[in-house]
Amino acid sequence: MSARPWSPTAFRAAARTLAATGQRIYQHGWSPATSSNYSMRLNDRYCAVTVSGRDKGLLSEADIMVVELANNQGASPGKPSAETGLHTQVYRRHADAQAVLHTHSMASTVLTMELADQKRLRLEGYELLKAFGGNSTHDTVLDIPVFENTQDIDALARDVDAAMDAGTITHAYLIRGHGVYTWGESMAACYRQLEALEFLFAVEVQRRQMRSRA
Amino acid sequence: MSARPWSPTAFRAAARTLAATGQRIYQHGWSPATSSNYSMRLNDRYCAVTVSGRDKGLLSEADIMVVELANNQGASPGKPSAETGLHTQVYRRHADAQAVLHTHSMASTVLTMELADQKRLRLEGYELLKAFGGNSTHDTVLDIPVFENTQDIDALARDVDAAMDAGTITHAYLIRGHGVYTWGESMAACYRQLEALEFLFAVEVQRRQMRSRA
Amino acid sequence: MSARPWSPTAFRAAARTLAATGQRIYQHGWSPATSSNYSMRLNDRYCAVTVSGRDKGLLSEADIMVVELANNQGASPGKPSAETGLHTQVYRRHADAQAVLHTHSMASTVLTMELADQKRLRLEGYELLKAFGGNSTHDTVLDIPVFENTQDIDALARDVDAAMDAGTITHAYLIRGHGVYTWGESMAACYRQLEALEFLFAVEVQRRQMRSRA
Amino acid sequence: MSARPWSPTAFRAAARTLAATGQRIYQHGWSPATSSNYSMRLNDRYCAVTVSGRDKGLLSEADIMVVELANNQGASPGKPSAETGLHTQVYRRHADAQAVLHTHSMASTVLTMELADQKRLRLEGYELLKAFGGNSTHDTVLDIPVFENTQDIDALARDVDAAMDAGTITHAYLIRGHGVYTWGESMAACYRQLEALEFLFAVEVQRRQMRSRA
Repeated sequence: MSARPWSPTAFRAAARTLAATGQRIYQHGWSPATSSNYSMRLNDRYCAVTVSGRDKGLLSEADIMVVELANNQGASPGKPSAETGLHTQVYRRHADAQAVLHTHSMASTVLTMELADQKRLRLEGYELLKAFGGNSTHDTVLDIPVFENTQDIDALARDVDAAMDAGTITHAYLIRGHGVYTWGESMAACYRQLEALEFLFAVEVQRRQMRSRA
Repeated sequence: MSARPWSPTAFRAAARTLAATGQRIYQHGWSPATSSNYSMRLNDRYCAVTVSGRDKGLLSEADIMVVELANNQGASPGKPSAETGLHTQVYRRHADAQAVLHTHSMASTVLTMELADQKRLRLEGYELLKAFGGNSTHDTVLDIPVFENTQDIDALARDVDAAMDAGTITHAYLIRGHGVYTWGESMAACYRQLEALEFLFAVEVQRRQMRSRA
Repeated sequence: MSARPWSPTAFRAAARTLAATGQRIYQHGWSPATSSNYSMRLNDRYCAVTVSGRDKGLLSEADIMVVELANNQGASPGKPSAETGLHTQVYRRHADAQAVLHTHSMASTVLTMELADQKRLRLEGYELLKAFGGNSTHDTVLDIPVFENTQDIDALARDVDAAMDAGTITHAYLIRGHGVYTWGESMAACYRQLEALEFLFAVEVQRRQMRSRA
Repeated sequence: MSARPWSPTAFRAAARTLAATGQRIYQHGWSPATSSNYSMRLNDRYCAVTVSGRDKGLLSEADIMVVELANNQGASPGKPSAETGLHTQVYRRHADAQAVLHTHSMASTVLTMELADQKRLRLEGYELLKAFGGNSTHDTVLDIPVFENTQDIDALARDVDAAMDAGTITHAYLIRGHGVYTWGESMAACYRQLEALEFLFAVEVQRRQMRSRA
């Protein structure tokens, strides 16, 4: 009798956490129209990830499946999100990453589309920069790279990997017209970073909307 | 004893789905002040549609009635929405349309009123364009025609039909100062398209609000 | 044994409706910081109105009291809202007015403060103008007078009365930096008008925020 | 047997009130990413305050602890918020202060970052200025000082104390890129002021976003 190579108890806990987190993210408006995908690590070979195309406002445990980190193949029933490869890239590279969140907010879309020639978004001087692991002061800079959007997720995952090699990605990256990816050592840490990012993106939009004043 | 020419079970299921969907849409802010109307196909001759003038934030099964597709006449008690003819036009033309949603959001109103001379709204380069049936890439264009508003719904339905003949309407159309119509092969697909449209309309407003920056 | 000159059953029904409506309005963000007041007619001599200074997000039946229309005096325990005189003015003048709602939204504040020299706000060409009693088309104009703010409510009530004599107030009026008043033949009709007004005020703000585009 | 120098009943009541208020504030969007901190006075020597780094959207009684006013040291298990010293400064100085709220909203961040050279924010002519203790008219001015952000909370507390000596702080102060502090004679009064402040900050942002119109 062969047992599954992950703990069913760990999977169910992850599925519950992902469903609850997804509904919360949807309520913020950051996962419209079945966009976005979320995952948690199960062990050094597998993660739990959202099934492709599910309504994030109605997300339940039944919308979560298991994927093998090495090859992005489903290890439980369901079709994994098309962008699963961007989750597994993080888990393969960062042994301490326990959660990855990708959202698709208005603010990240507005900024990356309207600032169409910018390859990074700079966040500077905000108290909320302390929400990112390793920062202990507001008096710092967080540069978030912006990748051009593509449907070739394998190629994008390689580009992300290369940028991590080069040290230009620390806590998150953006994809133009598509949203943000961030990760953390726990879902709580990852979600805190996500809230900070989405808050700061929206602040950046609003500040630019003030700038034409006389 | 004559039976009704639609399934009571199908009607009750449609009424429940329409009430739940309407409340969700209201929570997004897209159906203020009893505006908007929603429908689902019952069979090749009838659809279920919202009764005229009901509060969408309090929508219940009692606010849904049956209408005959051929003549827009009520086939169960109630006064159908004044714009029922725009729903039946879709069902008559598209045999695979199972749901039609019309909403009345701030973003669609702002765009169509402020861009008063534009006859279409172009959405281009957004990842969320993949939410529309048939699209598999963000690298595409969705042109949404804008019709001038009128109280002559029969005439508007004929104009929409002619535009569909001409191939200029694919997934949705706007009415100036009034909102959007979209449809799909299931309520889930239709609602997904609606969320994508409303998201992209709001993005288009926000981008234009940034444009005067120095 | 002297009975009260209003029906306790009618009062309790009004109190429940006012509490539920107030909580709904608060959720929309239109009654911050204990601002706003709401009322319903009990008969030709009395109305039910919110007690002064209550948190509208927590509004309950205990926050509603009775006021005499002729003199704005409380007829049940509690201190009536300072602006009660603007409610009773409507009931005295309009025998068919059954509900009055005053809200204090961001959009009405932004418009009346920023357009500081304008004595009216014009709403034109919107489908939602049909939400106002007597309108059957979008192809119309609704002018909403803007009164200067004052703490002399008696004087303001007289000014409103004079403007109604002159025919310049139809469905609603604004007070600069303070909010809107509207009324209707039922709470449902009044609330529908309020949602339409707040929607259109916000649309007017957003349109102006787009106008500096190149 | 030595009893604790505060009432356990008072502490539990304060913890419940703080948790409920915090969740409400989070729902408004004013406490993202574990930012913000809230407190209530227990007696002349102790206050209840939020434990550092807790998710304000999930705040419970278990996230509240006791701190000694004289030295900012925890008197019950937990690590107090890093900014506890800004709460105790208020309680030491104002014997009638019963509650202190610090939030971290988009509007306060946008205003203080974008108006980077301004040392105060002036609020003038708004009806909602009556929400601040001691104001009985809209025809007044509220100047809110803006302090530069720092991680040296002791130094900031001294600067705030000096500004109170100088009479330039009345009901609230801002920290650049960080948020607002306000206090009151009860939590209800303090929360009312907070709602008024956040409303007026957002109004100030929106007004500036309109200003480039032709």
